[in-house]
Amino acid sequence: MPRLGDESGTTGASFGARALVLADVLAESSDSPEYLACTYMTLAHRAVAARLREWMRIAGMTASIDAVGNVVGRYPSERPDAKTVIVGSHYDTVLNAGKYDGRLGILSALLAIEELHRTGRKLPFNIELIAFSEEEGVRFSSPYLGSSAVAGKFDMSLLPRRDAGGYGLADTLAAAGFDPHAIPALARKREDLAGYLELHIEQGPILLGEGLPVGVVTSIAGAVRYSVVVTGTAGHAGTVPMQMRHDAAAAAAELTLLVETRARQAPGLVGTVGRLTVPNGAINVIPGRCEMSFELRAGEDAMRDAALADVLAGIKAIQQRRGVTIDAKEVLRSPAVPCTPRIQKLFGDAVARAGITPRLLPSGAGHDAVMFDKLTDLGMLFVRCGNGGISHSPLETITAADADIGVRILLDVLVNYQS
Amino acid sequence: MPRLGDESGTTGASFGARALVLADVLAESSDSPEYLACTYMTLAHRAVAARLREWMRIAGMTASIDAVGNVVGRYPSERPDAKTVIVGSHYDTVLNAGKYDGRLGILSALLAIEELHRTGRKLPFNIELIAFSEEEGVRFSSPYLGSSAVAGKFDMSLLPRRDAGGYGLADTLAAAGFDPHAIPALARKREDLAGYLELHIEQGPILLGEGLPVGVVTSIAGAVRYSVVVTGTAGHAGTVPMQMRHDAAAAAAELTLLVETRARQAPGLVGTVGRLTVPNGAINVIPGRCEMSFELRAGEDAMRDAALADVLAGIKAIQQRRGVTIDAKEVLRSPAVPCTPRIQKLFGDAVARAGITPRLLPSGAGHDAVMFDKLTDLGMLFVRCGNGGISHSPLETITAADADIGVRILLDVLVNYQS
Repeated sequence: MPRLGDESGTTGASFGARALVLADVLAESSDSPEYLACTYMTLAHRAVAARLREWMRIAGMTASIDAVGNVVGRYPSERPDAKTVIVGSHYDTVLNAGKYDGRLGILSALLAIEELHRTGRKLPFNIELIAFSEEEGVRFSSPYLGSSAVAGKFDMSLLPRRDAGGYGLADTLAAAGFDPHAIPALARKREDLAGYLELHIEQGPILLGEGLPVGVVTSIAGAVRYSVVVTGTAGHAGTVPMQMRHDAAAAAAELTLLVETRARQAPGLVGTVGRLTVPNGAINVIPGRCEMSFELRAGEDAMRDAALADVLAGIKAIQQRRGVTIDAKEVLRSPAVPCTPRIQKLFGDAVARAGITPRLLPSGAGHDAVMFDKLTDLGMLFVRCGNGGISHSPLETITAADADIGVRILLDVLVNYQS
Repeated sequence: MPRLGDESGTTGASFGARALVLADVLAESSDSPEYLACTYMTLAHRAVAARLREWMRIAGMTASIDAVGNVVGRYPSERPDAKTVIVGSHYDTVLNAGKYDGRLGILSALLAIEELHRTGRKLPFNIELIAFSEEEGVRFSSPYLGSSAVAGKFDMSLLPRRDAGGYGLADTLAAAGFDPHAIPALARKREDLAGYLELHIEQGPILLGEGLPVGVVTSIAGAVRYSVVVTGTAGHAGTVPMQMRHDAAAAAAELTLLVETRARQAPGLVGTVGRLTVPNGAINVIPGRCEMSFELRAGEDAMRDAALADVLAGIKAIQQRRGVTIDAKEVLRSPAVPCTPRIQKLFGDAVARAGITPRLLPSGAGHDAVMFDKLTDLGMLFVRCGNGGISHSPLETITAADADIGVRILLDVLVNYQS
């Protein structure tokens, strides 16, 4: 019997080649005929869920779709009192997405479990493969809808929230045949869990730059985000001497370079000015106002907070030196989530057994794994992102060889997992 | 008989107090009920022209409105073969304007000539007081319509140009009773001219900062303007390490500070980044594109060009160091116009006779005087701008005492002018 995704006509295709075939099949369902988009509870989203449930069943699991749209496949232990290891990632996408963000983790686990089933191997713990319904936060401007429900952190106050078209979250669930009031009961019990594992495409260029197919995640970065308004004094670009100016754009430029310079001082720290604009700027007017944002992320909160303190001190200095006002408001603060050391070691040992140097690296992006912080042990494996590390884009690529290594390491970790 | 603008009931009001009263009267005519705007050939604009013509006649001049809308008052010499000194400035305004930009020069000359007339004094040259109809370029996006006609530099190819409402320049003139084809004949002959004088509010903070009521203009700054697009690589703000980024906003920030730093290196040089924007910037995305502008101005072209060369070299260095593309296009280049040394000296001597230290300073803004470059000798006097030097704004202010000094110095210069 051919295995999932095997189009070779034989049974010879690798895990990786098959994962890519399955990702192509999922990408056939999209909210748009122009590009890939699979947002929460659309027809495309429900079609993907149905297909994943079918594939989980073929792979030897019992499978169902829960009240928040997660597709949950269960590969039970032979021991009736066994705990459960969750292997998860998400099947929703951003708009104009790539095919592997989120889905690679689901498909890798699917093929690993199919292999356990095919070889008749049972483990001393149950595996739940959960394809989370929502992680990107596109449709209802709130991420982690699927994983937060499983982790017992779903925010029921989101239910009245409306999407851009005016459809409410609760109404959308009901119209699709789901019962929003059943969501709280999806929460797993701490004492039943033996851990959480997630494989994900890196979405960055580090592994690509170092020639490594996989890497072990040490932590998922925390972030602080600031929204900033710089107010100076507008003036005639020809008549105000340089030493009498209070130029809002020049002050903003100085802050932009300060964020960059400070972020460069520590590996694993990143700092970004993503918004920067002089409203109604004119070529011959000294800017009186500049609006901008900055964010800082690091795998360790202390590293991030030290950088933030320096940036805030720099803002004070720029204000005084330039005679401008800089109004900086914190708009987000999320803590870093460390991956459990024993699971980092499990992944690292498996990577080494595959003949690859274990590369430890933080995740700059958020992932479903953060929802399981302090609930159970957790760990993540990154698979190399091609094409310069581009993600959230149709230009996102991965090779079959790398995907293959990812599945094999996940399988190794499951087989060697101590629950 | 009371003099123009004298509301004292006696004949005791100063030139300055009267100039301010007359400016208030002109400001009663506006295109908008909300703010002062007097743009080319509107009803308000024509009302101002009619009032100026009336005042010129009261002040002892023959006066008419020419084919381009200039109000031309003539105070003839007693010598039939005399040459002509033009004293000019403009009566149009920007949108949401102050009351003195342009008009102060017209009203100062009006009161000075009224004084000559009142005291029965004739000069060895004709005076033409020309209230230019258009200098700001607001309605038809082309400045100097009035003064260019008198200087023989009117661009007839502008006639088909349309304003924002779709009205063509030629049609607008015809509808107002003007003959656009008569404009070329307005050009004065070089051999008939003995010089061009202009008094103007400074529109900047230099005289205010130094506690001086007036200053003598050395030159009107030339400018270069560049429109710039910085192209880098967009990316996820969490996943791309600092050393692998090609951040368009950071590169633009560096260029912004380079323009500022270089402009600070020479007194009389100014540099401005007026437009700066990351299109569709998001707080968590590394900017892949930033659009901006810069301009450099100086009273001497060589000073400006040296600064430009340094900025362009800096752009090359930023491109190479950051791996971004910086596309910088020159969109304007206007040469500096020097004020004729003998007229600078005439103004300086008159300032000294008024007991004031003669302060020589360049004009960063353009003025009607630039149209007379290489046609006749020219010079300008600046009068102190209050309120931090703000202009092109209803916050523009001037004191009656400063305006008074301006009129007296202009009168002194006329009386002592060697044609």
